[in-house]
Amino acid sequence: MSTSVNSTPVNEKDEQVFQDLKLLNAVNDRYGGVIVEVREAMDSALFGSVLRASIAQWRHQGKKGVWIKLPIQHVNLVEAAVKEGFWFHHAEPNYLMLCYWIPEGTHTLPANASHRIGISAFVMNEKREVLVVQESTGRFQGTGVWKFPTGVVNEGEDICAAAVREVKEETAVDTKFIEILAFRQSHKALFDKSDIFFLCLLEPLS
Amino acid sequence: MSTSVNSTPVNEKDEQVFQDLKLLNAVNDRYGGVIVEVREAMDSALFGSVLRASIAQWRHQGKKGVWIKLPIQHVNLVEAAVKEGFWFHHAEPNYLMLCYWIPEGTHTLPANASHRIGISAFVMNEKREVLVVQESTGRFQGTGVWKFPTGVVNEGEDICAAAVREVKEETAVDTKFIEILAFRQSHKALFDKSDIFFLCLLEPLS
Repeated sequence: MSTSVNSTPVNEKDEQVFQDLKLLNAVNDRYGGVIVEVREAMDSALFGSVLRASIAQWRHQGKKGVWIKLPIQHVNLVEAAVKEGFWFHHAEPNYLMLCYWIPEGTHTLPANASHRIGISAFVMNEKREVLVVQESTGRFQGTGVWKFPTGVVNEGEDICAAAVREVKEETAVDTKFIEILAFRQSHKALFDKSDIFFLCLLEPLS
Repeated sequence: MSTSVNSTPVNEKDEQVFQDLKLLNAVNDRYGGVIVEVREAMDSALFGSVLRASIAQWRHQGKKGVWIKLPIQHVNLVEAAVKEGFWFHHAEPNYLMLCYWIPEGTHTLPANASHRIGISAFVMNEKREVLVVQESTGRFQGTGVWKFPTGVVNEGEDICAAAVREVKEETAVDTKFIEILAFRQSHKALFDKSDIFFLCLLEPLS
């Protein structure tokens, strides 16, 4: 649902602002908040004014969290949003998500993704031979250490599919996923994020 | 290690730039790249020029990935970095991480955290009574549905600690973590991120 100019403004100052500016298009979320997705180029000073007026409007409506999804091509608007009190929630290569909390007190906005998922592949054939590799880059490069194929589960990828893919990429061997043998969780890994690492059993098909 | 002005510039234009500008302080990462952490306020136009000269320097040195960690108080520099070809890698409430890839071809920069981790607590006492709750907010609010306590594993929190914490928060019951009974992975959840959800067995202590 889009917001519209309110017919019962809070005070005269707000009334003036509401009359002068077209407010931001927003859709309601399921938690009493609103989501703004910026789709068109805009002057940053104008954006700041419109955002301020929109927040006054949302406050009057009793809204809670405000989300702004800003595509990277509209990066000129980031500073204006931060000046209005927004902070960074998360970012992906092509957009930045900013957020703001209208009510008094601590916000209840959900946290950003916190974990990276890794896999290690234990591939054993009928002769009980195990598939191992040596690192061409990274910590064990040039050390002579043999290890299981390992890798990171891609965005949106199943753990079992990631294990099969990594083995294929690293060794060209086709495999079938059998089961997860063990896993462990660790903290303060890359970019201070946590990590869950699954040891998977696979059977070679070739 | 900090970068310094190079004594063998690539060409005259670069030489001029190197002489005129103090380059950005950067530390080398373990993968042939550099990391810049912005610690002081700076004019955005000047930052753009210094960044351009620094990239020329890093290219000359054969560097690969470039990371800029930008605290939210220096948000005025985001647009200048994007204009120089940087894109968003990830963000936390107080900083934005931007990145850039110098060599020809596809970048090999690691991906952002991809998963949120959830838990559900199966708490059973000696009488085989199971602890259940009703939602005061959310999807099952007002439906009369009883469910296990559930929640999200916090940043840096162990799965077993999260299960104990959520039960305490939702029911005031102290518990001891026993084991993980099952888990499932799902995709395209909140903010399009993936989700791993662990069903944990706990024993009541009170």
